[in-house]
Amino acid sequence: MGRVTVRRPVLRINADGVRRRPDSLAAEEPLEIRVQSRALSVTMRTPGSDVELAHGFLLTEGAIHDRDDVAGARFCDSPGPDGRNTYNVLDVHLAPGVPPPDPSVERNFYTTSSCGVCGKAALDSVRLSTRHRPAGDPLRIRADVLADLPGKLRSAQRVFDTTGGLHAAGLFAADGSLLAVREDVGRHNAVDKVLGWALLEGMIPLSGHVLMVSGRASFELVQKAAMAGLPMLSAVSAPSALAVDLAEEQGMTLVGFLRGRSMNVYTGFERVVTDVS
Amino acid sequence: MGRVTVRRPVLRINADGVRRRPDSLAAEEPLEIRVQSRALSVTMRTPGSDVELAHGFLLTEGAIHDRDDVAGARFCDSPGPDGRNTYNVLDVHLAPGVPPPDPSVERNFYTTSSCGVCGKAALDSVRLSTRHRPAGDPLRIRADVLADLPGKLRSAQRVFDTTGGLHAAGLFAADGSLLAVREDVGRHNAVDKVLGWALLEGMIPLSGHVLMVSGRASFELVQKAAMAGLPMLSAVSAPSALAVDLAEEQGMTLVGFLRGRSMNVYTGFERVVTDVS
Repeated sequence: MGRVTVRRPVLRINADGVRRRPDSLAAEEPLEIRVQSRALSVTMRTPGSDVELAHGFLLTEGAIHDRDDVAGARFCDSPGPDGRNTYNVLDVHLAPGVPPPDPSVERNFYTTSSCGVCGKAALDSVRLSTRHRPAGDPLRIRADVLADLPGKLRSAQRVFDTTGGLHAAGLFAADGSLLAVREDVGRHNAVDKVLGWALLEGMIPLSGHVLMVSGRASFELVQKAAMAGLPMLSAVSAPSALAVDLAEEQGMTLVGFLRGRSMNVYTGFERVVTDVS
Repeated sequence: MGRVTVRRPVLRINADGVRRRPDSLAAEEPLEIRVQSRALSVTMRTPGSDVELAHGFLLTEGAIHDRDDVAGARFCDSPGPDGRNTYNVLDVHLAPGVPPPDPSVERNFYTTSSCGVCGKAALDSVRLSTRHRPAGDPLRIRADVLADLPGKLRSAQRVFDTTGGLHAAGLFAADGSLLAVREDVGRHNAVDKVLGWALLEGMIPLSGHVLMVSGRASFELVQKAAMAGLPMLSAVSAPSALAVDLAEEQGMTLVGFLRGRSMNVYTGFERVVTDVS
Protein backbone atom coordinates (compact mmCIF):
# COMPACT_ATOMS: atom_id res chain seq x y z
CA MET A 1 0.00 0.00 0.00
CA GLY A 2 2.48 2.61 -1.18
CA ARG A 3 -0.37 5.03 -1.72
CA VAL A 4 -1.16 5.56 1.97
CA THR A 5 1.45 8.31 2.15
CA VAL A 6 2.87 10.51 -0.59
CA ARG A 7 6.00 12.71 -0.61
CA ARG A 8 5.75 16.36 -1.63
CA PRO A 9 8.20 19.30 -1.36
CA VAL A 10 7.38 21.86 1.32
CA LEU A 11 8.69 25.24 2.39
CA ARG A 12 9.05 25.11 6.17
CA ILE A 13 8.97 28.52 7.86
CA ASN A 14 9.70 28.92 11.56
CA ALA A 15 11.85 30.86 14.03
CA ASP A 16 14.96 29.14 12.63
CA GLY A 17 14.33 30.50 9.16
CA VAL A 18 13.08 29.13 5.87
CA ARG A 19 14.08 25.83 4.34
CA ARG A 20 12.79 23.57 1.63
CA ARG A 21 12.43 19.87 2.42
CA PRO A 22 10.33 16.85 1.42
CA ASP A 23 7.26 16.10 3.51
CA SER A 24 5.04 13.01 3.87
CA LEU A 25 1.34 13.60 3.32
CA ALA A 26 -1.66 11.33 3.75
CA ALA A 27 -3.02 10.08 0.44
CA GLU A 28 -6.60 10.95 -0.47
CA GLU A 29 -8.38 9.33 -3.41
CA PRO A 30 -12.03 8.86 -4.35
CA LEU A 31 -13.53 5.43 -3.70
CA GLU A 32 -16.69 4.57 -5.59
CA ILE A 33 -18.70 1.92 -3.79
CA ARG A 34 -20.96 -0.08 -6.07
CA VAL A 35 -23.58 -2.63 -5.08
CA GLN A 36 -24.55 -5.19 -7.74
CA SER A 37 -22.53 -3.11 -10.25
CA ARG A 38 -24.57 0.03 -9.52
CA ALA A 39 -22.86 3.13 -8.08
CA LEU A 40 -24.06 3.86 -4.54
CA SER A 41 -21.60 6.38 -3.10
CA VAL A 42 -18.28 8.13 -3.68
CA THR A 43 -16.18 8.96 -0.65
CA MET A 44 -12.80 10.70 -0.48
CA ARG A 45 -10.69 8.29 1.53
CA THR A 46 -7.12 7.25 2.28
CA PRO A 47 -6.52 4.06 0.24
CA GLY A 48 -6.26 0.86 2.25
CA SER A 49 -8.78 -1.35 4.07
CA ASP A 50 -11.21 -0.54 1.25
CA VAL A 51 -13.11 -3.83 1.51
CA GLU A 52 -13.61 -3.16 5.23
CA LEU A 53 -14.66 0.41 4.44
CA ALA A 54 -17.33 -0.78 2.02
CA HIS A 55 -18.64 -3.35 4.50
CA GLY A 56 -18.72 -0.79 7.31
CA PHE A 57 -20.45 1.76 5.11
CA LEU A 58 -23.15 -0.74 4.08
CA LEU A 59 -23.57 -1.86 7.70
CA THR A 60 -23.97 1.66 9.06
CA GLU A 61 -26.33 2.63 6.23
CA GLY A 62 -28.54 -0.33 7.17
CA ALA A 63 -28.00 -2.20 3.88
CA ILE A 64 -26.31 -5.26 5.44
CA HIS A 65 -26.35 -6.67 8.97
CA ASP A 66 -23.99 -9.62 8.87
CA ARG A 67 -20.98 -10.83 6.85
CA ASP A 68 -23.23 -13.50 5.33
CA ASP A 69 -25.23 -10.72 3.66
CA VAL A 70 -22.28 -10.17 1.29
CA ALA A 71 -21.41 -12.72 -1.39
CA GLY A 72 -18.19 -10.99 -2.40
CA ALA A 73 -16.39 -7.73 -3.13
CA ARG A 74 -13.92 -7.02 -5.92
CA PHE A 75 -12.13 -4.03 -7.44
CA CYS A 76 -13.43 -3.14 -10.88
CA ASP A 77 -11.17 -2.43 -13.80
CA SER A 78 -10.87 1.36 -13.47
CA PRO A 79 -7.81 2.56 -15.38
CA GLY A 80 -6.23 5.91 -14.54
CA PRO A 81 -4.40 8.26 -16.94
CA ASP A 82 -1.41 5.89 -17.02
CA GLY A 83 -3.61 2.94 -18.01
CA ARG A 84 -3.12 1.14 -14.70
CA ASN A 85 -6.01 0.15 -12.45
CA THR A 86 -6.62 2.85 -9.85
CA TYR A 87 -8.25 0.39 -7.41
CA ASN A 88 -10.76 3.16 -6.71
CA VAL A 89 -13.95 1.33 -7.69
CA LEU A 90 -15.15 -1.50 -5.46
CA ASP A 91 -18.16 -3.61 -6.40
CA VAL A 92 -20.00 -5.44 -3.61
CA HIS A 93 -22.23 -8.36 -4.48
CA LEU A 94 -24.92 -9.17 -1.98
CA ALA A 95 -25.98 -12.66 -1.00
CA PRO A 96 -29.16 -14.00 -2.64
CA GLY A 97 -32.27 -12.50 -1.06
CA VAL A 98 -30.53 -9.39 0.35
CA PRO A 99 -32.21 -6.35 -1.23
CA PRO A 100 -29.83 -3.72 -2.65
CA PRO A 101 -30.01 -0.25 -1.10
CA ASP A 102 -31.75 2.50 -3.04
CA PRO A 103 -29.05 4.94 -4.20
CA SER A 104 -31.51 7.80 -4.49
CA VAL A 105 -32.16 8.05 -0.77
CA GLU A 106 -28.65 7.16 0.30
CA ARG A 107 -27.71 9.06 3.50
CA ASN A 108 -30.83 11.22 3.19
CA PHE A 109 -33.38 8.76 4.49
CA TYR A 110 -34.58 10.97 7.33
CA THR A 111 -35.88 13.54 4.89
CA THR A 112 -38.80 11.24 4.18
CA SER A 113 -40.07 11.46 7.74
CA SER A 114 -43.63 12.72 7.92
CA CYS A 115 -42.85 15.41 10.50
CA GLY A 116 -40.40 17.26 8.28
CA VAL A 117 -36.69 17.63 8.72
CA CYS A 118 -35.65 17.94 12.34
CA GLY A 119 -33.45 16.37 14.96
CA LYS A 120 -36.38 14.35 16.34
CA ALA A 121 -37.03 12.83 12.91
CA ALA A 122 -33.35 11.94 12.62
CA LEU A 123 -33.45 10.16 16.01
CA ASP A 124 -36.61 8.31 15.02
CA SER A 125 -35.11 7.08 11.77
CA VAL A 126 -32.10 5.54 13.55
CA ARG A 127 -34.42 3.76 16.00
CA LEU A 128 -36.37 2.34 13.10
CA SER A 129 -33.32 1.25 11.09
CA THR A 130 -31.03 -0.32 13.71
CA ARG A 131 -31.53 -3.91 14.83
CA HIS A 132 -29.62 -3.35 18.05
CA ARG A 133 -30.39 -1.51 21.25
CA PRO A 134 -27.44 -1.09 23.60
CA ALA A 135 -29.80 -0.03 26.40
CA GLY A 136 -29.39 -3.30 28.31
CA ASP A 137 -25.75 -3.92 27.45
CA PRO A 138 -23.91 -5.02 30.61
CA LEU A 139 -20.62 -3.28 29.64
CA ARG A 140 -18.86 -1.66 32.59
CA ILE A 141 -15.48 0.06 32.21
CA ARG A 142 -13.26 1.75 34.77
CA ALA A 143 -12.63 5.47 34.30
CA ASP A 144 -8.87 4.92 34.54
CA VAL A 145 -9.07 2.32 31.76
CA LEU A 146 -11.01 4.81 29.62
CA ALA A 147 -8.41 7.49 30.30
CA ASP A 148 -5.75 5.26 28.74
CA LEU A 149 -7.61 4.76 25.44
CA PRO A 150 -6.51 7.96 23.64
CA GLY A 151 -2.85 7.15 24.28
CA LYS A 152 -3.29 3.59 23.02
CA LEU A 153 -5.11 4.83 19.93
CA ARG A 154 -2.41 7.39 19.23
CA SER A 155 0.40 4.84 19.68
CA ALA A 156 -1.25 2.54 17.15
CA GLN A 157 -1.56 5.25 14.47
CA ARG A 158 1.19 4.35 12.06
CA VAL A 159 0.38 6.85 9.32
CA PHE A 160 -0.23 9.78 11.68
CA ASP A 161 3.37 9.55 12.85
CA THR A 162 4.65 10.35 9.37
CA THR A 163 1.97 12.79 8.22
CA GLY A 164 0.53 14.35 11.39
CA GLY A 165 -2.80 14.48 9.66
CA LEU A 166 -5.14 11.54 9.95
CA HIS A 167 -8.25 10.73 11.90
CA ALA A 168 -8.33 7.43 13.74
CA ALA A 169 -10.97 5.07 15.08
CA GLY A 170 -10.16 2.24 17.47
CA LEU A 171 -12.19 -0.66 18.77
CA PHE A 172 -11.47 -1.63 22.38
CA ALA A 173 -12.55 -4.43 24.72
CA ALA A 174 -13.85 -3.61 28.20
CA ASP A 175 -10.42 -4.28 29.73
CA GLY A 176 -8.93 -1.56 27.52
CA SER A 177 -7.20 -3.87 25.04
CA LEU A 178 -7.11 -2.53 21.47
CA LEU A 179 -8.67 -4.89 18.94
CA ALA A 180 -8.42 -2.83 15.75
CA VAL A 181 -7.39 0.66 14.65
CA ARG A 182 -7.90 2.29 11.27
CA GLU A 183 -6.82 5.70 9.94
CA ASP A 184 -8.28 7.91 7.25
CA VAL A 185 -8.41 11.54 6.09
CA GLY A 186 -12.15 11.30 6.83
CA ARG A 187 -13.25 10.33 10.32
CA HIS A 188 -16.43 8.67 9.01
CA ASN A 189 -14.26 6.46 6.85
CA ALA A 190 -11.99 5.54 9.76
CA VAL A 191 -15.09 4.45 11.70
CA ASP A 192 -16.52 2.53 8.73
CA LYS A 193 -13.19 0.70 8.28
CA VAL A 194 -13.13 -0.43 11.91
CA LEU A 195 -16.80 -1.45 11.91
CA GLY A 196 -16.38 -3.25 8.58
CA TRP A 197 -13.45 -5.15 10.10
CA ALA A 198 -15.68 -6.16 13.02
CA LEU A 199 -18.45 -7.28 10.66
CA LEU A 200 -16.01 -9.43 8.68
CA GLU A 201 -14.84 -10.93 11.99
CA GLY A 202 -18.44 -11.87 12.82
CA MET A 203 -18.50 -9.51 15.83
CA ILE A 204 -21.72 -7.55 15.06
CA PRO A 205 -23.48 -6.53 17.31
CA LEU A 206 -20.48 -5.16 19.20
CA SER A 207 -21.90 -5.78 22.64
CA GLY A 208 -19.39 -5.13 25.43
CA HIS A 209 -17.06 -2.99 23.28
CA VAL A 210 -15.99 0.65 23.12
CA LEU A 211 -15.39 2.68 19.96
CA MET A 212 -12.89 5.52 20.37
CA VAL A 213 -12.53 8.33 17.80
CA SER A 214 -9.81 10.95 17.53
CA GLY A 215 -12.01 13.97 16.88
CA ARG A 216 -15.50 15.18 17.69
CA ALA A 217 -18.61 13.04 18.22
CA SER A 218 -21.21 14.06 15.67
CA PHE A 219 -24.71 12.72 15.16
CA GLU A 220 -23.52 10.58 12.27
CA LEU A 221 -20.77 8.92 14.31
CA VAL A 222 -23.23 8.00 17.10
CA GLN A 223 -25.55 6.74 14.37
CA LYS A 224 -22.81 4.49 12.97
CA ALA A 225 -22.04 3.18 16.47
CA ALA A 226 -25.74 2.47 17.03
CA MET A 227 -26.02 0.56 13.76
CA ALA A 228 -23.13 -1.67 14.93
CA GLY A 229 -24.73 -2.29 18.33
CA LEU A 230 -21.98 -0.55 20.33
CA PRO A 231 -22.82 0.33 23.95
CA MET A 232 -20.15 3.06 24.20
CA LEU A 233 -18.59 5.76 22.01
CA SER A 234 -15.77 7.92 23.33
CA ALA A 235 -14.20 10.93 21.64
CA VAL A 236 -11.19 13.15 22.25
CA SER A 237 -13.25 16.25 21.48
CA ALA A 238 -16.75 17.60 22.01
CA PRO A 239 -20.03 15.95 21.04
CA SER A 240 -22.87 17.87 19.46
CA ALA A 241 -26.17 18.19 21.28
CA LEU A 242 -27.89 15.89 18.75
CA ALA A 243 -25.14 13.28 19.22
CA VAL A 244 -25.95 13.32 22.96
CA ASP A 245 -29.68 13.08 22.25
CA LEU A 246 -29.20 10.06 19.98
CA ALA A 247 -26.92 8.30 22.47
CA GLU A 248 -29.52 8.91 25.21
CA GLU A 249 -32.32 7.65 22.97
CA GLN A 250 -30.34 4.51 22.13
CA GLY A 251 -29.21 3.80 25.68
CA MET A 252 -25.59 4.25 24.61
CA THR A 253 -22.83 5.70 26.79
CA LEU A 254 -21.24 8.78 25.21
CA VAL A 255 -17.92 10.10 26.54
CA GLY A 256 -16.30 13.32 25.27
CA PHE A 257 -13.24 15.47 26.00
CA LEU A 258 -11.35 12.30 26.92
CA ARG A 259 -7.94 13.89 27.52
CA GLY A 260 -5.26 13.36 30.12
CA ARG A 261 -7.02 11.92 33.17
CA SER A 262 -10.31 13.71 32.65
CA MET A 263 -13.48 13.13 30.65
CA ASN A 264 -17.10 14.17 30.32
CA VAL A 265 -19.75 11.45 30.43
CA TYR A 266 -22.89 12.69 28.68
CA THR A 267 -25.15 9.62 28.73
CA GLY A 268 -25.23 6.11 30.18
CA PHE A 269 -23.31 7.15 33.33
CA GLU A 270 -23.76 3.71 34.89
CA ARG A 271 -21.24 2.09 32.53
CA VAL A 272 -18.32 4.23 33.73
CA VAL A 273 -16.98 2.89 37.03
CA THR A 274 -15.28 5.38 39.33
CA ASP A 275 -13.82 4.87 42.79
CA VAL A 276 -16.52 7.03 44.30
CA SER A 277 -19.48 5.56 42.47
CA MET B 1 -30.47 32.09 17.65
CA GLY B 2 -31.04 30.17 20.86
CA ARG B 3 -30.44 26.92 19.04
CA VAL B 4 -26.73 27.49 18.43
CA THR B 5 -25.91 26.04 21.82
CA VAL B 6 -27.88 23.62 23.99
CA ARG B 7 -27.49 22.77 27.69
CA ARG B 8 -27.18 19.15 28.77
CA PRO B 9 -26.22 17.50 32.10
CA VAL B 10 -22.76 15.95 32.18
CA LEU B 11 -20.75 13.81 34.59
CA ARG B 12 -17.30 15.41 34.80
CA ILE B 13 -14.55 13.01 35.91
CA ASN B 14 -11.03 14.23 36.64
CA ALA B 15 -8.32 14.15 39.28
CA ASP B 16 -10.52 16.21 41.60
CA GLY B 17 -13.25 13.58 41.57
CA VAL B 18 -16.66 13.18 39.99
CA ARG B 19 -19.31 15.84 39.78
CA ARG B 20 -22.49 16.42 37.84
CA ARG B 21 -22.95 19.78 36.17
CA PRO B 22 -24.67 21.35 33.15
CA ASP B 23 -22.63 21.71 29.98
CA SER B 24 -23.09 23.77 26.82
CA LEU B 25 -23.01 21.80 23.57
CA ALA B 26 -23.05 22.91 19.96
CA ALA B 27 -26.42 22.37 18.31
CA GLU B 28 -26.59 20.07 15.29
CA GLU B 29 -29.69 19.84 13.11
CA PRO B 30 -30.33 18.67 9.56
CA LEU B 31 -30.73 21.37 6.93
CA GLU B 32 -32.45 20.40 3.71
CA ILE B 33 -31.45 22.67 0.86
CA ARG B 34 -34.02 22.83 -1.92
CA VAL B 35 -33.66 24.53 -5.30
CA GLN B 36 -36.90 25.49 -7.05
CA SER B 37 -38.77 23.46 -4.38
CA ARG B 38 -36.81 20.29 -5.18
CA ALA B 39 -34.60 18.67 -2.51
CA LEU B 40 -30.92 18.89 -3.45
CA SER B 41 -29.00 18.05 -0.27
CA VAL B 42 -29.29 17.44 3.44
CA THR B 43 -26.40 18.50 5.65
CA MET B 44 -26.01 18.18 9.41
CA ARG B 45 -25.18 21.71 10.50
CA THR B 46 -25.22 24.10 13.44
CA PRO B 47 -28.27 26.34 12.92
CA GLY B 48 -27.50 29.94 11.99
CA SER B 49 -26.29 31.65 8.80
CA ASP B 50 -28.38 29.13 6.88
CA VAL B 51 -29.04 31.44 3.93
CA GLU B 52 -25.29 32.02 3.64
CA LEU B 53 -24.70 28.27 3.94
CA ALA B 54 -27.07 27.55 1.04
CA HIS B 55 -25.49 30.24 -1.14
CA GLY B 56 -21.98 28.97 -0.35
CA PHE B 57 -22.99 25.37 -1.02
CA LEU B 58 -24.51 26.27 -4.40
CA LEU B 59 -21.45 28.39 -5.27
CA THR B 60 -18.95 25.66 -4.43
CA GLU B 61 -21.01 23.01 -6.22
CA GLY B 62 -20.90 25.17 -9.36
CA ALA B 63 -24.66 25.82 -9.45
CA ILE B 64 -24.42 29.61 -9.00
CA HIS B 65 -21.60 32.08 -9.59
CA ASP B 66 -22.95 35.43 -8.44
CA ARG B 67 -25.56 36.78 -6.01
CA ASP B 68 -27.65 37.79 -9.02
CA ASP B 69 -28.05 34.10 -9.88
CA VAL B 70 -30.40 33.79 -6.87
CA ALA B 71 -33.87 35.36 -6.93
CA GLY B 72 -34.57 34.59 -3.28
CA ALA B 73 -34.35 32.10 -0.42
CA ARG B 74 -36.97 31.34 2.20
CA PHE B 75 -37.58 28.80 4.95
CA CYS B 76 -40.37 26.35 4.13
CA ASP B 77 -43.10 25.46 6.55
CA SER B 78 -41.54 22.38 8.16
CA PRO B 79 -43.27 21.69 11.47
CA GLY B 80 -41.51 19.60 14.13
CA PRO B 81 -43.14 17.33 16.72
CA ASP B 82 -44.33 20.40 18.68
CA GLY B 83 -46.02 21.86 15.59
CA ARG B 84 -43.60 24.77 15.34
CA ASN B 85 -41.51 25.44 12.25
CA THR B 86 -38.10 23.79 12.59
CA TYR B 87 -36.47 26.25 10.14
CA ASN B 88 -34.61 23.24 8.77
CA VAL B 89 -35.81 23.40 5.17
CA LEU B 90 -34.55 26.26 2.99
CA ASP B 91 -35.80 26.76 -0.55
CA VAL B 92 -33.62 28.72 -2.97
CA HIS B 93 -35.19 30.19 -6.08
CA LEU B 94 -32.83 30.86 -8.93
CA ALA B 95 -32.99 33.90 -11.19
CA PRO B 96 -34.62 33.42 -14.60
CA GLY B 97 -32.29 31.63 -17.00
CA VAL B 98 -30.11 29.99 -14.31
CA PRO B 99 -30.38 26.21 -14.77
CA PRO B 100 -31.09 24.22 -11.58
CA PRO B 101 -28.44 21.67 -10.55
CA ASP B 102 -29.15 18.00 -11.17
CA PRO B 103 -29.70 16.36 -7.75
CA SER B 104 -28.74 12.93 -9.04
CA VAL B 105 -25.11 13.81 -9.62
CA GLU B 106 -24.82 16.16 -6.68
CA ARG B 107 -21.28 15.99 -5.19
CA ASN B 108 -20.47 12.95 -7.32
CA PHE B 109 -19.81 14.69 -10.60
CA TYR B 110 -16.26 13.40 -10.99
CA THR B 111 -17.52 9.84 -11.24
CA THR B 112 -18.66 10.60 -14.76
CA SER B 113 -15.12 11.22 -15.96
CA SER B 114 -14.16 8.95 -18.82
CA CYS B 115 -10.93 7.80 -17.19
CA GLY B 116 -12.65 6.25 -14.22
CA VAL B 117 -12.49 7.35 -10.62
CA CYS B 118 -9.11 8.70 -9.64
CA GLY B 119 -7.42 11.76 -8.20
CA LYS B 120 -6.50 13.03 -11.68
CA ALA B 121 -10.15 12.91 -12.76
CA ALA B 122 -11.11 14.82 -9.61
CA LEU B 123 -8.53 17.53 -10.41
CA ASP B 124 -9.75 17.74 -14.01
CA SER B 125 -13.36 18.17 -12.96
CA VAL B 126 -12.52 21.16 -10.74
CA ARG B 127 -10.60 22.80 -13.58
CA LEU B 128 -13.58 22.34 -15.86
CA SER B 129 -16.15 23.60 -13.36
CA THR B 130 -14.50 26.67 -11.82
CA ARG B 131 -14.62 30.03 -13.57
CA HIS B 132 -11.62 31.32 -11.66
CA ARG B 133 -7.93 30.58 -11.77
CA PRO B 134 -5.92 32.07 -8.93
CA ALA B 135 -2.67 31.34 -10.81
CA GLY B 136 -2.05 35.00 -11.63
CA ASP B 137 -3.47 36.48 -8.43
CA PRO B 138 -1.07 39.17 -7.16
CA LEU B 139 -1.75 38.43 -3.46
CA ARG B 140 1.36 38.68 -1.29
CA ILE B 141 1.23 38.19 2.47
CA ARG B 142 3.96 38.39 5.09
CA ALA B 143 4.72 35.18 7.02
CA ASP B 144 4.35 37.01 10.33
CA VAL B 145 0.90 38.23 9.28
CA LEU B 146 -0.05 34.64 8.39
CA ALA B 147 1.20 33.42 11.76
CA ASP B 148 -1.29 35.73 13.49
CA LEU B 149 -4.36 34.35 11.65
CA PRO B 150 -5.07 31.29 13.86
CA GLY B 151 -5.15 33.47 16.97
CA LYS B 152 -7.47 35.97 15.32
CA LEU B 153 -9.75 33.17 14.12
CA ARG B 154 -9.84 31.61 17.57
CA SER B 155 -10.58 34.95 19.26
CA ALA B 156 -13.54 35.49 16.96
CA GLN B 157 -15.09 32.09 17.70
CA ARG B 158 -17.96 32.93 19.99
CA VAL B 159 -19.60 29.52 20.18
CA PHE B 160 -16.34 27.58 20.59
CA ASP B 161 -15.72 29.43 23.83
CA THR B 162 -18.83 27.91 25.40
CA THR B 163 -18.80 24.48 23.77
CA GLY B 164 -15.15 23.76 22.91
CA GLY B 165 -16.37 21.89 19.90
CA LEU B 166 -16.81 23.76 16.66
CA HIS B 167 -14.93 24.10 13.43
CA ALA B 168 -14.31 27.60 12.14
CA ALA B 169 -13.57 29.24 8.82
CA GLY B 170 -12.39 32.83 8.52
CA LEU B 171 -11.92 35.14 5.57
CA PHE B 172 -8.96 37.52 5.81
CA ALA B 173 -7.61 40.40 3.77
CA ALA B 174 -3.94 40.50 2.77
CA ASP B 175 -3.12 42.80 5.71
CA GLY B 176 -4.42 40.15 8.12
CA SER B 177 -7.71 41.85 8.97
CA LEU B 178 -10.60 39.47 9.61
CA LEU B 179 -13.59 40.08 7.36
CA ALA B 180 -15.90 37.23 8.39
CA VAL B 181 -15.85 34.15 10.60
CA ARG B 182 -18.41 31.36 10.77
CA GLU B 183 -18.62 28.28 13.02
CA ASP B 184 -20.23 24.89 12.50
CA VAL B 185 -20.08 21.29 13.68
CA GLY B 186 -19.06 20.49 10.09
CA ARG B 187 -16.02 22.21 8.63
CA HIS B 188 -17.44 22.10 5.11
CA ASN B 189 -20.45 23.99 6.41
CA ALA B 190 -18.27 26.60 8.13
CA VAL B 191 -16.49 27.19 4.81
CA ASP B 192 -19.77 27.31 2.86
CA LYS B 193 -21.17 29.87 5.32
CA VAL B 194 -18.17 32.18 4.90
CA LEU B 195 -18.11 31.82 1.11
CA GLY B 196 -21.89 32.35 0.95
CA TRP B 197 -21.42 35.54 2.98
CA ALA B 198 -18.78 36.70 0.47
CA LEU B 199 -21.08 35.90 -2.45
CA LEU B 200 -23.91 37.89 -0.89
CA GLU B 201 -21.46 40.77 -0.40
CA GLY B 202 -20.61 40.66 -4.12
CA MET B 203 -16.99 39.67 -3.43
CA ILE B 204 -16.70 36.59 -5.70
CA PRO B 205 -14.06 35.91 -7.02
CA LEU B 206 -12.16 36.40 -3.76
CA SER B 207 -9.01 37.68 -5.40
CA GLY B 208 -6.45 38.97 -2.89
CA HIS B 209 -7.97 37.13 0.10
CA VAL B 210 -7.01 34.25 2.39
CA LEU B 211 -9.35 31.58 3.74
CA MET B 212 -8.27 30.09 7.08
CA VAL B 213 -9.76 26.85 8.47
CA SER B 214 -9.42 25.39 11.96
CA GLY B 215 -8.76 21.77 10.97
CA ARG B 216 -7.22 19.83 8.13
CA ALA B 217 -7.12 20.83 4.46
CA SER B 218 -8.87 18.14 2.43
CA PHE B 219 -9.42 17.95 -1.33
CA GLU B 220 -12.97 19.20 -0.90
CA LEU B 221 -11.93 22.31 1.04
CA VAL B 222 -9.37 23.25 -1.64
CA GLN B 223 -12.10 22.60 -4.21
CA LYS B 224 -14.45 24.99 -2.41
CA ALA B 225 -11.71 27.63 -2.22
CA ALA B 226 -11.03 27.20 -5.95
CA MET B 227 -14.71 27.60 -6.81
CA ALA B 228 -14.68 30.93 -4.93
CA GLY B 229 -11.53 32.13 -6.72
CA LEU B 230 -9.38 32.27 -3.57
CA PRO B 231 -5.60 32.50 -4.11
CA MET B 232 -4.74 31.11 -0.65
CA LEU B 233 -6.04 28.52 1.81
CA SER B 234 -4.37 28.07 5.18
CA ALA B 235 -5.10 25.38 7.76
CA VAL B 236 -4.12 24.69 11.35
CA SER B 237 -3.55 21.01 10.54
CA ALA B 238 -2.23 18.83 7.74
CA PRO B 239 -3.32 18.81 4.09
CA SER B 240 -3.85 15.61 2.15
CA ALA B 241 -1.69 14.86 -0.87
CA LEU B 242 -4.64 15.38 -3.23
CA ALA B 243 -5.38 18.75 -1.60
CA VAL B 244 -1.80 19.78 -2.41
CA ASP B 245 -2.13 18.46 -5.97
CA LEU B 246 -5.31 20.46 -6.55
CA ALA B 247 -3.83 23.65 -5.08
CA GLU B 248 -0.80 23.21 -7.37
CA GLU B 249 -3.01 22.56 -10.38
CA GLN B 250 -5.07 25.67 -9.62
CA GLY B 251 -2.12 27.94 -8.88
CA MET B 252 -3.37 28.38 -5.32
CA THR B 253 -1.12 28.83 -2.27
CA LEU B 254 -1.74 26.13 0.34
CA VAL B 255 -0.42 26.58 3.89
CA GLY B 256 -0.68 23.89 6.57
CA PHE B 257 0.41 23.31 10.18
CA LEU B 258 -0.02 27.04 10.80
CA ARG B 259 0.72 27.03 14.53
CA GLY B 260 2.68 29.33 16.80
CA ARG B 261 5.24 31.08 14.58
CA SER B 262 5.71 28.19 12.15
CA MET B 263 3.99 26.92 9.02
CA ASN B 264 4.42 24.66 6.01
CA VAL B 265 3.89 26.17 2.57
CA TYR B 266 3.02 23.41 0.11
CA THR B 267 2.28 25.33 -3.10
CA GLY B 268 2.45 28.88 -4.43
CA PHE B 269 5.51 29.74 -2.33
CA GLU B 270 5.86 33.15 -4.01
CA ARG B 271 2.83 34.57 -2.18
CA VAL B 272 4.37 34.13 1.28
CA VAL B 273 6.85 36.92 1.98
CA THR B 274 9.66 36.16 4.41
CA ASP B 275 12.56 38.35 5.49
CA VAL B 276 15.00 36.09 3.68
CA SER B 277 13.07 35.70 0.43
